[in-house]
Amino acid sequence: MTADFRTASIIGLGLIGGSLARDLAARGVRVRAYDADERQLEDAVRAGIVSGRIDPAFEDVGADLIVVAVPVDAAGDVLRRAAPFSRSAKLITDVGSTKTAIVEAARALGLGQRFVGSHPMAGDHRSGWDVSRTGLFSDARVYLCPAGGAPAEALDLACRLWTELGARPERIEAREHDRQLAWSSHLPHVAAASIAIAMADAGISRGDLGPGGRDATRLAGSSPEVWTAIALENAAAIDAALAGAEREIASFRQALTHGDAGELRRRFVAARNWFEV
Amino acid sequence: MTADFRTASIIGLGLIGGSLARDLAARGVRVRAYDADERQLEDAVRAGIVSGRIDPAFEDVGADLIVVAVPVDAAGDVLRRAAPFSRSAKLITDVGSTKTAIVEAARALGLGQRFVGSHPMAGDHRSGWDVSRTGLFSDARVYLCPAGGAPAEALDLACRLWTELGARPERIEAREHDRQLAWSSHLPHVAAASIAIAMADAGISRGDLGPGGRDATRLAGSSPEVWTAIALENAAAIDAALAGAEREIASFRQALTHGDAGELRRRFVAARNWFEV
Repeated sequence: MTADFRTASIIGLGLIGGSLARDLAARGVRVRAYDADERQLEDAVRAGIVSGRIDPAFEDVGADLIVVAVPVDAAGDVLRRAAPFSRSAKLITDVGSTKTAIVEAARALGLGQRFVGSHPMAGDHRSGWDVSRTGLFSDARVYLCPAGGAPAEALDLACRLWTELGARPERIEAREHDRQLAWSSHLPHVAAASIAIAMADAGISRGDLGPGGRDATRLAGSSPEVWTAIALENAAAIDAALAGAEREIASFRQALTHGDAGELRRRFVAARNWFEV
Repeated sequence: MTADFRTASIIGLGLIGGSLARDLAARGVRVRAYDADERQLEDAVRAGIVSGRIDPAFEDVGADLIVVAVPVDAAGDVLRRAAPFSRSAKLITDVGSTKTAIVEAARALGLGQRFVGSHPMAGDHRSGWDVSRTGLFSDARVYLCPAGGAPAEALDLACRLWTELGARPERIEAREHDRQLAWSSHLPHVAAASIAIAMADAGISRGDLGPGGRDATRLAGSSPEVWTAIALENAAAIDAALAGAEREIASFRQALTHGDAGELRRRFVAARNWFEV
């Protein structure tokens, strides 16, 4: 991998950007970084992970690898500001949970030849540099979305990068990614948040929950900034997924109201079948 | 604890009954058991945890401690059949996730003086003897619901039993227990099952999920038998909790439809506030 990248610029040192910085530094890559939170940046420098700061205008962002790791509503702007100074980069990528807008932004900026969007499925409810760690991407699926016109070489580079970090890269078209993720990730996040708010209204605290309930509501602890941005960017697809969950809850309520043991059992069996496959 | 109970009869060797058998046996209590699944019973005897079988008519169920650990729709019948042979028991308890019906059944059977219902919050999505283990109740909350007319001594016995196993007993009135648990436990279970069914319909498999989504849907793997019984027994309270979750999901969808960033953020912040308290 050092054959591919000797230097990396990481913009945003949250859970994903910070963990990426740690993994790259551990492999001998010289990592420089920017973060709007001066404290996070300071901690990363002091930890010896980040060897230099990138100035806020991104004029010195140039590196073999450039990673945009900010909330998805800020990623397009960061990419636009960094683009003029990124000519030396072999690969430019991001790590956001939605891909259509950023891939389109990269193409419009003329970065199509070297931009491959990434989405590592490695997050949980925690956020920030303080919870970043080496090995976060071990065995994680990473969706890769090349910008229109990206040559095979760019995708190969992105594949090698994530494989080297222990992840399992998988190519997918950006729009299909956003449709699928609305179900597999955004739905559970919004559902957990909704259940949390309902519990709060009912006077139930998280301390009242058992191990299962705590697992089920963990995503309620996710970053409001990150998730507001994702929700807005993938609103239509998330709405469709929420409508699907609403329909199933309504069917469940109907079976409860009718005391329909057969239907209740059929539903719990269907859920377990999905779980066990 | 051996001062309280030298012998125990456990009816039902699933996750909870099996783990209780292991913990009691480890403390020198002579444990006998019954399970409708001959294989589970056989395994428990072979493991040296259960030293004798209780006959299916429960004529030999007598012991210092009797524990009913079967799905809640079967618990009342088991208690009724065991009652005539339980005169020597100092404490009779159960471990079900709903408490109103079993406490009322105990009272009606004249067991009120010695019955204290228990609900250890120690389960997860797994079930059966194979996943039972020692220490399951360590640091778990255990709700205790004395039958009407139970003297302080019965509650003290139940408290000492669970405390000895590392749990944190907490007295609560049976009806209030069922109302609260509809929110804290039954809602997350039904929500996880509903999301699982919606995902299955959308062609999303559990393998498509990241760590957060997997946590959020783990309860979909719960036992259909156990949960159909709980749902039927606590239907009205669960319906109210589901209605609460539905309202929050609907409000979320409205904010999505209107692209209302402020409202979306307010909701994610409310969810995280609940999470962090």
